[in-house]
Amino acid sequence: MSWCGWGDPAKARELPEQVRGLLRDLLGVRAPHAPAATLESVRLPPVALTPAHLAALAGVVGAEHVRTGHEERVRHTRGKSTPDLLRLRAGDGSDAPDAVVLPGSHEEVAELLALCSRERVAVVPFGGGTSVVGGLAAARAGFAGVVALDLARLDRLRSVDAESMTAGFEPGVRAPDAERLLAAHGLTLGHFPQSFEYATLGGFAAARSSGQASAGYGRFDDMVVGLTLATPSGTLDLGRAPKSAAGPDLRQLVLGSEGAFGVITALRLRVRRAPAERAYEGWRFPSWRAGSAAVRALAQEGPVPTVLRLSDETETMIGLAEPDAIGAGGSGCLLVAGHEGASVAARRAAAGAVLARLGGEPLGEGPGRAWEHGRFSAPYLRDALLAAGATVETLETAGFWANLPRLYDAVRLALLGALGSPLVMCHISHVYETGASLYFTVVTPQNEDPVAQWERAKAEVNAAVVAAGGTISHHHGVGRDHRAAYAAEIGPLGAGVLRAVKARLDPAGILNPGVLVPED
Amino acid sequence: MSWCGWGDPAKARELPEQVRGLLRDLLGVRAPHAPAATLESVRLPPVALTPAHLAALAGVVGAEHVRTGHEERVRHTRGKSTPDLLRLRAGDGSDAPDAVVLPGSHEEVAELLALCSRERVAVVPFGGGTSVVGGLAAARAGFAGVVALDLARLDRLRSVDAESMTAGFEPGVRAPDAERLLAAHGLTLGHFPQSFEYATLGGFAAARSSGQASAGYGRFDDMVVGLTLATPSGTLDLGRAPKSAAGPDLRQLVLGSEGAFGVITALRLRVRRAPAERAYEGWRFPSWRAGSAAVRALAQEGPVPTVLRLSDETETMIGLAEPDAIGAGGSGCLLVAGHEGASVAARRAAAGAVLARLGGEPLGEGPGRAWEHGRFSAPYLRDALLAAGATVETLETAGFWANLPRLYDAVRLALLGALGSPLVMCHISHVYETGASLYFTVVTPQNEDPVAQWERAKAEVNAAVVAAGGTISHHHGVGRDHRAAYAAEIGPLGAGVLRAVKARLDPAGILNPGVLVPED
Repeated sequence: MSWCGWGDPAKARELPEQVRGLLRDLLGVRAPHAPAATLESVRLPPVALTPAHLAALAGVVGAEHVRTGHEERVRHTRGKSTPDLLRLRAGDGSDAPDAVVLPGSHEEVAELLALCSRERVAVVPFGGGTSVVGGLAAARAGFAGVVALDLARLDRLRSVDAESMTAGFEPGVRAPDAERLLAAHGLTLGHFPQSFEYATLGGFAAARSSGQASAGYGRFDDMVVGLTLATPSGTLDLGRAPKSAAGPDLRQLVLGSEGAFGVITALRLRVRRAPAERAYEGWRFPSWRAGSAAVRALAQEGPVPTVLRLSDETETMIGLAEPDAIGAGGSGCLLVAGHEGASVAARRAAAGAVLARLGGEPLGEGPGRAWEHGRFSAPYLRDALLAAGATVETLETAGFWANLPRLYDAVRLALLGALGSPLVMCHISHVYETGASLYFTVVTPQNEDPVAQWERAKAEVNAAVVAAGGTISHHHGVGRDHRAAYAAEIGPLGAGVLRAVKARLDPAGILNPGVLVPED
Repeated sequence: MSWCGWGDPAKARELPEQVRGLLRDLLGVRAPHAPAATLESVRLPPVALTPAHLAALAGVVGAEHVRTGHEERVRHTRGKSTPDLLRLRAGDGSDAPDAVVLPGSHEEVAELLALCSRERVAVVPFGGGTSVVGGLAAARAGFAGVVALDLARLDRLRSVDAESMTAGFEPGVRAPDAERLLAAHGLTLGHFPQSFEYATLGGFAAARSSGQASAGYGRFDDMVVGLTLATPSGTLDLGRAPKSAAGPDLRQLVLGSEGAFGVITALRLRVRRAPAERAYEGWRFPSWRAGSAAVRALAQEGPVPTVLRLSDETETMIGLAEPDAIGAGGSGCLLVAGHEGASVAARRAAAGAVLARLGGEPLGEGPGRAWEHGRFSAPYLRDALLAAGATVETLETAGFWANLPRLYDAVRLALLGALGSPLVMCHISHVYETGASLYFTVVTPQNEDPVAQWERAKAEVNAAVVAAGGTISHHHGVGRDHRAAYAAEIGPLGAGVLRAVKARLDPAGILNPGVLVPED
């Protein structure tokens, strides 16, 4: 993984000349004001932990699993939001952990949490490091130091229950490895978020991830039927049945807790048979409104495709639904429908009849295949845009169908108001009977302080989302970046409930301080 | 509603002579040891609340909505479990509330909770009064008195959002009224538990109800997309989108909270179009094992029927799947599959192909229609059995598919061990990809103390469910009767989390004391 960008540096891409021209002529993008730092030149704070602390950590996990080297610390600094990358590119490593600690078992995690509670060392649970909401930058004040608790060694598939169609995983398994391990049993999770190549199963659970095929396979929180949470106060073992009326569903209190309540050390996940067939296709709608109505019809009346995604006019024109062919868009609104599993032909035909009836024009499998091929490419594209002097970032929300037009307008207006004339694109990519998500991509020229520039815009968007009745995040999470808006969303009493839970599980407050849980 | 039984007394039924013979000859059932009490003869504790308390309550809701009459108190005493009915039939009204209070708005509920917190008056939120797990019997010790907070006046459909396919309801709407109100819009909830005729929407949410058509329409917790909870510490307003990654799903902390965290005063529910077609049919399988495999195949590979229910050999023989024709069962295991909505013929044919392939013999629509006709009849039958000297009770659990045989055996063994030679019947009636529920009905002759007799058996079953890895309840809830087993299920840390949440929302501990939340 690139230390200050996304993905395998070998897959880094050049911007096509056409795109450079668009950026220059349409948006006024110019080369960045400052050159990018090198990994070696990133400025890190001195290691705050004492040798005694480090020795105690090594006593739990072994000396080889406590790391304080420069590169290791840089690679565990923050996540992969655009401000995170911009800060690193500017050489700012001020949020680096003092040490990276790699436990090898649930018991070691539990011991680490007990040790860090005693010593007031903040702990940032670290999976794939792909947070885009500031979920990995601990508030250091008041602590003896900060460790990144990297779950990379907990990377095993522990069991497959083919009768119950569940699989037991350790939390540090990366998504491609999970798919590879399951494929040997003819199984799949079907969870393909844009972070797929790097993110871990534990991270998906902690952040309530939702993948591009959520219409067919469900969100990650739908897949978690059991979990184990190590906390400073002991262990929670949850999930004796798919569903229960035995009180509140405490699994749902852990899902989305973003490392602030404990460390997920085991997951029991619902799996599916690997699809026998798959077919992806494109449709064109004359307008966002017509396309939205068609998406809603499929979500409410079926048949629901496995993947269902609708780009607005701007995203369609730019061709962002097919990042590998950026700039090759068209008019109207592109809808991508993917069908996987059994009876693909029949489901495709039935869904196609609905789309045609509601004004869609079939484009065949080309756009579907192009989208599928480029489905994980957008973050690579972002790196090239950042290097070219553009700020590009994504943000997302969700709401009930009747409220989506208001949300759509509110976010666009906030971005336009904050940034002048940015390029704002949007798609619907996660649908439910009662509503859907809106996913925005914004491109704007970097000014001399692009982090501050973006943070101002982001604050306005957050306020707009809250005011327009949307949720502050459909699938990115809360982290630090959404914490204030989240407090507004759940209200003072909801925040009080979270603080009460946190105080019970993490009395010393060492777990991911500053993330998720609103301040009193 | 019968004051000491189930349903409209006019619908009370006589036991067929064949059933009386079975009870006598097969189980040794004899007439009850004591005659049943009359409503007037039920012994109630004196009203503990002072005139000042009653005046203060009247100050909030109006004098006509504070009731202390004998019949009103008896009708709010406990719920509808068999021990509840046996105690009332024995004239024991010791758990009666001192007063029944009927608020007319969210604001009045909030004021009542503030008042009762100040005065240390215990509050039992009361919807349809159909709890079968002791969810309505407050622990009185340490309180100045107990009021039943009856939500009957909050009985309106407030809004229909046909675009988002949601409806806003007050909590006291009874299920048949909800269906009637929605039918005027061509909509349905599709929630049909056995308590349908009396239970309220707020009660469904508070107890995580699941209806007979859960395979098609989902559980009630799937239907709740938004809710308002009045608590002594303020109001929680939750649900800005169908799903969100903004932290833990706090809705899921309220669902299943059984009145111990607050009073649900508003619900936003997902609705569906009323089904255009419906077809119910019966299938016979040679064994429970073969039938279970078929049910699992439909749950995992589809097409999932709207209703899917499999009776074991004993339930099939007795004919309990068709309570209106009790005694008219057959051999093997009866499966009922119901299909509602669109494309019923195609879905029925596809499901039928799966069932036939896995050894099912089609019985046509007769058994399906019989089941549908009698779907709410079993509780009426219970009254007749109780009067005849038999104890009849139901209990249920859920687990993952691979664990269901162990759970099935464990519950049966516990019942046989505790009761000698009872009749034990079981069905699967709520299915998921990863598991299902098991619903048991047990019939045994009453001894001279049938409440104590049942409570001993119930304690053994609870322990067996916990030991066998099942959840203590799939859809009845926790109440008082499952509280100890629930504590074992979620462990001391889970219990600690619940207590922390309760302490934040209900610092005086007035809400349904003794219910749900395990003791420290």
